[in-house]
Amino acid sequence: MIATKEVEVTRLEGGPRESRESRTDQVVLEEPLEIRVSGETLSITMRTPGHDHELVLGFLWAEGIIRAREDVSSIAHCGRTGTEEKENTVEVKLAPGVRTPLDDIDAPLFARRGTITTSACGVCGRKSIDDLLARFERLADGARVSRGTVTAAVAGLRERQPLFARTGGCHAASLLTMSGKHVATFEDVGRHNAVDKVVGSRLRAGSLPLRDHLLVVSGRSSFEIVQKAIAAGIPVVASVSAPSSLAVSLASQANVTLVGFARGDAMTVYSGAARIT
Amino acid sequence: MIATKEVEVTRLEGGPRESRESRTDQVVLEEPLEIRVSGETLSITMRTPGHDHELVLGFLWAEGIIRAREDVSSIAHCGRTGTEEKENTVEVKLAPGVRTPLDDIDAPLFARRGTITTSACGVCGRKSIDDLLARFERLADGARVSRGTVTAAVAGLRERQPLFARTGGCHAASLLTMSGKHVATFEDVGRHNAVDKVVGSRLRAGSLPLRDHLLVVSGRSSFEIVQKAIAAGIPVVASVSAPSSLAVSLASQANVTLVGFARGDAMTVYSGAARIT
Repeated sequence: MIATKEVEVTRLEGGPRESRESRTDQVVLEEPLEIRVSGETLSITMRTPGHDHELVLGFLWAEGIIRAREDVSSIAHCGRTGTEEKENTVEVKLAPGVRTPLDDIDAPLFARRGTITTSACGVCGRKSIDDLLARFERLADGARVSRGTVTAAVAGLRERQPLFARTGGCHAASLLTMSGKHVATFEDVGRHNAVDKVVGSRLRAGSLPLRDHLLVVSGRSSFEIVQKAIAAGIPVVASVSAPSSLAVSLASQANVTLVGFARGDAMTVYSGAARIT
Repeated sequence: MIATKEVEVTRLEGGPRESRESRTDQVVLEEPLEIRVSGETLSITMRTPGHDHELVLGFLWAEGIIRAREDVSSIAHCGRTGTEEKENTVEVKLAPGVRTPLDDIDAPLFARRGTITTSACGVCGRKSIDDLLARFERLADGARVSRGTVTAAVAGLRERQPLFARTGGCHAASLLTMSGKHVATFEDVGRHNAVDKVVGSRLRAGSLPLRDHLLVVSGRSSFEIVQKAIAAGIPVVASVSAPSSLAVSLASQANVTLVGFARGDAMTVYSGAARIT
């Protein structure tokens, strides 16, 4: 899977080196992925093609639609061979007898990145957080990680981003053990997709929950990133950038250690600082 | 509307200044917004509170759900006064007789950021682009902008980001005329929301389409950003960062000038370079 596309561009330079020249450049691939479960479209997400099955499994896990690897009886691209339709559609068949939250909803469904919700009025931050906490266990206190491991993990992310190196525009998520051993890194135009791919790959490997692991994301930590970490049981989320208010609230309530602005030797810990030694 | 939240953090420093201290910090507000049209939930998006009406109007415009300011008979926050429910829910009533694409769909609806779609199989990039181009006119060739204006507009964005200055984690979108006059800037945790707020504010002002305008966005240019620019008739989109492949394809087909990596005196033009003089 080639995840970049070559495009013709015009490069303009001003100042003393003023110039205008045509050349080719690499951009990161972005294509829609339609996720179908038991014949129904569940979500359409813009993603970078590659590791689509991991993306879908991770997404379904975060949404609480599957609760074990065995809940999925098959997963495959569908549609006419050799078409964009086939490349961009994944069909999941659930194992016989698996009931999902989708079965309980008879009103029209609305799927957005990160949450399935009914059309009930009055969805709000409070309710979303409560629902999420009800669905997943509060993370245990046990795991510890050294400040140096967090620093090295965040600093090391860029070296694991070949797509970023070629295009200058791609997110990534990395999973490491608490002792700093690298487990998996995925790149994608969407941070949330990169996290889904990480979690989906570990679901395939039968390694969930990821209790003694650290998740590093490029860019900011939003509500959705923390939500996906909680779903996967990951107790520490770190980033080079800032978190949002809802990410901090959620992390705090679910006992996730949330680290931002991890740059050089310094970092800001927004919740769960006791885990960092 | 205060769009930041004060949180207690632990600041860790390593190296010679090794320290661990508690302090307060500002994070950008992120809350879900439920968008309701004629009593039905259309979408739930994570956004920074403030200018919600502009956000909703811009979103409905980009989706093709409204085609004129007059299509909206009322727009208001709904729910019990003083609750999060009320702060995070906006109800739009359409003018009598206004038919929307929503009326034509009787299958369950799936809303995601950026597109409304039915549960038909085989959604793919090709189809999305074709649908979009069918819905909006290809932009005219006429408008011109100087390289210096683009450079100054991109460089000036940061100075119009007070939320970013306080939190280090917030996107923004700015609208300027082709001669470089600043029209509007909005900040939000989501780039797409910032663009919706820009477009919604101009819809309220009766100024759409924005034919002689330049849109500057922080961060990368995705498919959705270009889609929203096309819907608003904006012929030039510029960013300090990279575009995705689908953003380039869409811009090229809709005759949008797409500028990336506008840093210092240099920039890369991915489509429509003839507009830049």
